[in-house]
Amino acid sequence: MKKMTAMSGFPEWTPEQRLLEMDLLSIISRQFTLFGFLPIETRAVEPLSVLLKKGDDKEIYVLKRLHDDGESKDAEEGVGLHFDLTVPFARYVLEHEHLLTFPFKRYQIQKVWRGERKQEGRYREFYQCDIDIIAKEQLPLSYDAELPVVLLEVMSLLPVPPVIVKINNRKLLEGFYRGLGIHAPNDVLRIVDKVAKIGPLKVIDLLKTELSLSELQAEQCVAFGRIQSRDLSFVNAVKAFGIEHSLLTEGLDELSFVLSFVKAMGFENIEVDLSIARGLDYYTGTVYEGYLVGHEHIGAVCSGGRYDNLAEGARQPLPGIGVSIGITRLLGYLFGRQLLAPTRASLLEHYVILKDESQRVDAFRLAQMLRKRGMPSDVHPTPQNFGKQMKVAEKKGARFVWFCEEGGQYSVKDLVTGVQCVAHPQEWSRPESTT
Amino acid sequence: MKKMTAMSGFPEWTPEQRLLEMDLLSIISRQFTLFGFLPIETRAVEPLSVLLKKGDDKEIYVLKRLHDDGESKDAEEGVGLHFDLTVPFARYVLEHEHLLTFPFKRYQIQKVWRGERKQEGRYREFYQCDIDIIAKEQLPLSYDAELPVVLLEVMSLLPVPPVIVKINNRKLLEGFYRGLGIHAPNDVLRIVDKVAKIGPLKVIDLLKTELSLSELQAEQCVAFGRIQSRDLSFVNAVKAFGIEHSLLTEGLDELSFVLSFVKAMGFENIEVDLSIARGLDYYTGTVYEGYLVGHEHIGAVCSGGRYDNLAEGARQPLPGIGVSIGITRLLGYLFGRQLLAPTRASLLEHYVILKDESQRVDAFRLAQMLRKRGMPSDVHPTPQNFGKQMKVAEKKGARFVWFCEEGGQYSVKDLVTGVQCVAHPQEWSRPESTT
Repeated sequence: MKKMTAMSGFPEWTPEQRLLEMDLLSIISRQFTLFGFLPIETRAVEPLSVLLKKGDDKEIYVLKRLHDDGESKDAEEGVGLHFDLTVPFARYVLEHEHLLTFPFKRYQIQKVWRGERKQEGRYREFYQCDIDIIAKEQLPLSYDAELPVVLLEVMSLLPVPPVIVKINNRKLLEGFYRGLGIHAPNDVLRIVDKVAKIGPLKVIDLLKTELSLSELQAEQCVAFGRIQSRDLSFVNAVKAFGIEHSLLTEGLDELSFVLSFVKAMGFENIEVDLSIARGLDYYTGTVYEGYLVGHEHIGAVCSGGRYDNLAEGARQPLPGIGVSIGITRLLGYLFGRQLLAPTRASLLEHYVILKDESQRVDAFRLAQMLRKRGMPSDVHPTPQNFGKQMKVAEKKGARFVWFCEEGGQYSVKDLVTGVQCVAHPQEWSRPESTT
Repeated sequence: MKKMTAMSGFPEWTPEQRLLEMDLLSIISRQFTLFGFLPIETRAVEPLSVLLKKGDDKEIYVLKRLHDDGESKDAEEGVGLHFDLTVPFARYVLEHEHLLTFPFKRYQIQKVWRGERKQEGRYREFYQCDIDIIAKEQLPLSYDAELPVVLLEVMSLLPVPPVIVKINNRKLLEGFYRGLGIHAPNDVLRIVDKVAKIGPLKVIDLLKTELSLSELQAEQCVAFGRIQSRDLSFVNAVKAFGIEHSLLTEGLDELSFVLSFVKAMGFENIEVDLSIARGLDYYTGTVYEGYLVGHEHIGAVCSGGRYDNLAEGARQPLPGIGVSIGITRLLGYLFGRQLLAPTRASLLEHYVILKDESQRVDAFRLAQMLRKRGMPSDVHPTPQNFGKQMKVAEKKGARFVWFCEEGGQYSVKDLVTGVQCVAHPQEWSRPESTT
């Protein structure tokens, strides 16, 4: 094994960073639980047919057995790593439908993989923290409003910059495009989505050349995407275009409901932004993107939306809605810019010093008594001079070092205050000022 | 998407089962933390060269980008999913050596993948819960004794049958074989390891025909593997063979130390068993296998051992030792035989009833107040008759249903006792008998 170097796109944290990541994941899953979401995990692999149907723009990692003996060709041909958690979830619901209570609210925190090209900031393996709700027949609009509340609540509890959630509605966009006389709204969406990247003029150009839109149609599509508001004033801005279509009206009502509800729940960091489209074409109603305020250039750190047909093949429609928090990307950015740093080297509290080999069992029993009381403890592996052992204790993040004294007594030294006293591990309590 | 069927070897749990699995994983990681192990995660993929060197007997899943454009051939050629967590850990230590404090104690709970043939009980994706300690230059023998203590402690806290840890020592075996005049001890090990499967007579036959051992040598190898004891009597049983070799003496001393220490720590479920060898050939000293008492036929549910040369390529030797708990396999067996079943449908406690649309914001605020107090709560998505809503509450596992009453008041009904009373979500407390 030669000296290893990092593999591009596959981030790995130090133990201290991992402790912090675990804290964040624990806050997130705790909040999801408080909102009534149930945990599931799905297998890492899905049939390629499933993955390709909903993610043809994704870079998929295909799996192959190294010692393939042709034994199980049929079952294994075309299996790949999942690129998100929504497609596997829809498949899971279809497969386990009889075991679930609907509307089914689940959360899922797992790694996903994308065979992206090498590029700064692109991850090939990363955590997603997803919540989704799937209903039978109809999914009430209230969930469209609940999701940004969950998002804003959970993000406010993380040690990260404030998050603003931008919302839009696919029906509103489709209604507008159709009202303009355009018959391929998804093609328009795909091009209009590039405004931030290539600018409005080029988008107008593409709409005209690629989709044969008129100058007026193209300009209106771009102008429509510029509408933003933190209150209901977007309704008049939309109406000012004078376009009529039932989908437009429906989208407008839904968007108004969601915005009003989230604000009524006391959250101000919500904004209607008609440029938000979400690349994946399975969304059919409300769409979300969450940005770190002041760090919008890194793109959305959470996103999602409503989909009506993801679990096709069921006896009845299974409409759903969900959002995803990209925690790896968020941490990678914050760690990289020193905007967030671990505060603890470990969770270790106690370190038992070993005077000589005869103390080993006694020292280990001492540590066991502390552990039984819920206090992380370790024993120095070999007798050494006390100074050396205490340095290791400090380096490992322990604050209290213990000694086995004559006559079965113990003493403990507080490395911060320097105070040492006789104590028993079953009775010792932490000095008051240190919790 | 057609109706989906399960994929052989890739188990998926129901939400209730996943809740239980999370409880177990949380007990395990809590215990690992109490013993001073630090958490890390490694990427799911490793270069094939690394995987093959230490796992040539493993079925490895190779990764390939679906839209491979030849751009990054060099870096990507030969990348596979890890088949265990020990090999990636050794690579991690080598790569991040400058950031770690040695001896480095880490725990790692992640899924691993093996491209096994389809077979009942064989998993292709499963969780492993690993602890390992890697030191510089020398790894004190005390860790060989600490690991079974951690294993026995953590397994005793899980809702599973009692576990017995069987131990052996590779030095003892190698010393014995060499003392018998055998020059390829690993080949003997590989064949002797089959005793349980093919029986002693066939093993003796193979040792003679494949390795040209004499009748006496072959018989002694098999007889040696029969030695078992829960006390130090195995020492005399070994000495009775009259074989002398420095490795044999060393192995005997180490094994005696480990057994004595674990028993001195108050654990009785530890046994010396000289038939334990562990297939992987990277072990060099103590080896472990843990079995469920009364369910030994399913094989080891945890295992591990000491390795001296896993992180080759470092400036100095990095010897290590570790054990792994196979939690997926364990749960799969216990779920399948109804030896373990989830006790809770969810963690949900409160369910807010919606009389009409005008109550929505109020109902949601009510739920938020309960959540802020740490109580999982949900709101019925649409106004419906109360009976229907209360049935959903029950189905979802909530015990308390809340109503928004006239004049800004609230009431709560206990679905178990049937008692309903006026209460405020910020002051309500759980009836005493229900915790």
